[in-house]
Amino acid sequence: MAVYTDINDEELALLLADYDLGTAVAFKGVAEGVENSNFMLETTVGRYFLTVYEKRMKAEELPFFLDLMRWLARHDYPCASPVADRAGQTIKQVRGKLAAIIEFLPGLSVRRPTAAHCREAGEGLARLHLAARGFPGTRKPALGQAAWAPLFATLREDAEALKPGLAATIGTDLDRLARTWPQGLPQGIIHEDYFPDNVFFSGGKFAGAIDFYFACVDTLAYDIAVALNAWCFEADGSFNITSARALVAGYETHRPLSPAERQALPILAHGAAMRFFLTRLEAWGSTPAGALVRPKDPLEYERKLAVHREAPDLVLFGDQA
Amino acid sequence: MAVYTDINDEELALLLADYDLGTAVAFKGVAEGVENSNFMLETTVGRYFLTVYEKRMKAEELPFFLDLMRWLARHDYPCASPVADRAGQTIKQVRGKLAAIIEFLPGLSVRRPTAAHCREAGEGLARLHLAARGFPGTRKPALGQAAWAPLFATLREDAEALKPGLAATIGTDLDRLARTWPQGLPQGIIHEDYFPDNVFFSGGKFAGAIDFYFACVDTLAYDIAVALNAWCFEADGSFNITSARALVAGYETHRPLSPAERQALPILAHGAAMRFFLTRLEAWGSTPAGALVRPKDPLEYERKLAVHREAPDLVLFGDQA
Repeated sequence: MAVYTDINDEELALLLADYDLGTAVAFKGVAEGVENSNFMLETTVGRYFLTVYEKRMKAEELPFFLDLMRWLARHDYPCASPVADRAGQTIKQVRGKLAAIIEFLPGLSVRRPTAAHCREAGEGLARLHLAARGFPGTRKPALGQAAWAPLFATLREDAEALKPGLAATIGTDLDRLARTWPQGLPQGIIHEDYFPDNVFFSGGKFAGAIDFYFACVDTLAYDIAVALNAWCFEADGSFNITSARALVAGYETHRPLSPAERQALPILAHGAAMRFFLTRLEAWGSTPAGALVRPKDPLEYERKLAVHREAPDLVLFGDQA
Repeated sequence: MAVYTDINDEELALLLADYDLGTAVAFKGVAEGVENSNFMLETTVGRYFLTVYEKRMKAEELPFFLDLMRWLARHDYPCASPVADRAGQTIKQVRGKLAAIIEFLPGLSVRRPTAAHCREAGEGLARLHLAARGFPGTRKPALGQAAWAPLFATLREDAEALKPGLAATIGTDLDRLARTWPQGLPQGIIHEDYFPDNVFFSGGKFAGAIDFYFACVDTLAYDIAVALNAWCFEADGSFNITSARALVAGYETHRPLSPAERQALPILAHGAAMRFFLTRLEAWGSTPAGALVRPKDPLEYERKLAVHREAPDLVLFGDQA
């Protein structure tokens, strides 16, 4: 949950004065997103979100994200599009911070996705990849494979503290990932954080995606790998192969994978588990003892890493198994 | 901000199955209220709030609060009314906790109330007192004058830690309040927490009140005194007499005060400042060091106490000054 910035009625009225959105009818901080402050904003014209970008958002990167959201919405992808003010601006300032008014996207996220949800989520991910084709913006991955070993160099002690012996295991993993990381697979805009809480459903059907603030240009199949980790593990840590196949099958109804992409999925999934393990480990180590808000447990992803590590030759996905 | 309880899509669907409210379209945790968890709930039928009551809510008291909200709504008072399920129940269970679905009340709270807002707020408070007449429920004040000295007995060290010498000053205040506390003034249902964040405006006009979970039967004019403290102090700690008169004048357009009530306002305001000073001091002392969520600063109310303490004979309110 996150409301780091407090916006009062006067600041809100001042902001809305720049738009053709009428006046505020209701305004409530929303416990959604972990990086930015989000507010539900109802005006005499419609319903919106106000997002206030906190310090982790780099000002020079925001246009890429907002332009992408707008591009996707204009290319029939269900996502919340930023609203321009009368001067055509989507990026505003509130309390000295960057802010944007975003359209309201209805839908519900699911906590425990079924295989049917996974199929829908896979379809939604492929549609995203297709809708983003031709988008002129570009952004390098901030947390791509090349970044993992340098990041881990700063976190060896945290890993050891989490579980004795873990630093060496992760080091071996990273060597293997560096050696075997797939090259030359189709690239494009990826969401990079396509987790269940960023995907909305309506009546069991895919209804849209939110939170594009990790989006970048990278290997498209890596986005599937992130999703496989996020959607297809059971609460007990086991990998649900039925859900995984459903997700990939849903994806392929819109964008069939090449044999090389399909073959790369296990190593991409191992890498995606590494990426989220490392960033969770980093957040874990930097949280003061006694804090009321605890970050997500890095051990969840340590267990996923172990699953991928121990079954490297298994054909995990698709119809070959 | 507060979302202590996490409700997933399955639990929500199960809850909604008991109501004639359709199915969920959107559901978001809201950073509102400090005692309970609140969610914005949009269904195919309309918009609501789901409140999940946390441990400070006593199960035997909840019917009083919900019945009062329903009574007020039915007596033309703009407040969010609980919705009954098909069996006529307003109190439900989610995750083993008590919960209620409440109607959505539009409106915006103001951060820095003007004198015009104070007049409207005063009108809204008098309307509340009148609308509650005849309500059959009853509840003793949990934090009325009789409770302050015993509460302070447990907080002397915290007061001293806050400001050396403060424990003795508060002790003297409490003696004086016990000696001079007004008796025999008109009683009725009071809100007891009529702060700006619990009052909604629409186009500058009073639009309703929320958060009735401190309501009880007590001296009606004490509710005005709570509001005077909450609405009529400037950020620099000075008491805004114009705002105070506007609040009382607004109140009196619906319910004129008796001379005894008017005369009692300064001591009631002193007492109301004491009540919030003590509960903030208590919350302050019980928060672990390093916690990300800090409670409200008790010194704000320590300064208000000082204002009331140093001007005991001043006719602060009304047309005599």
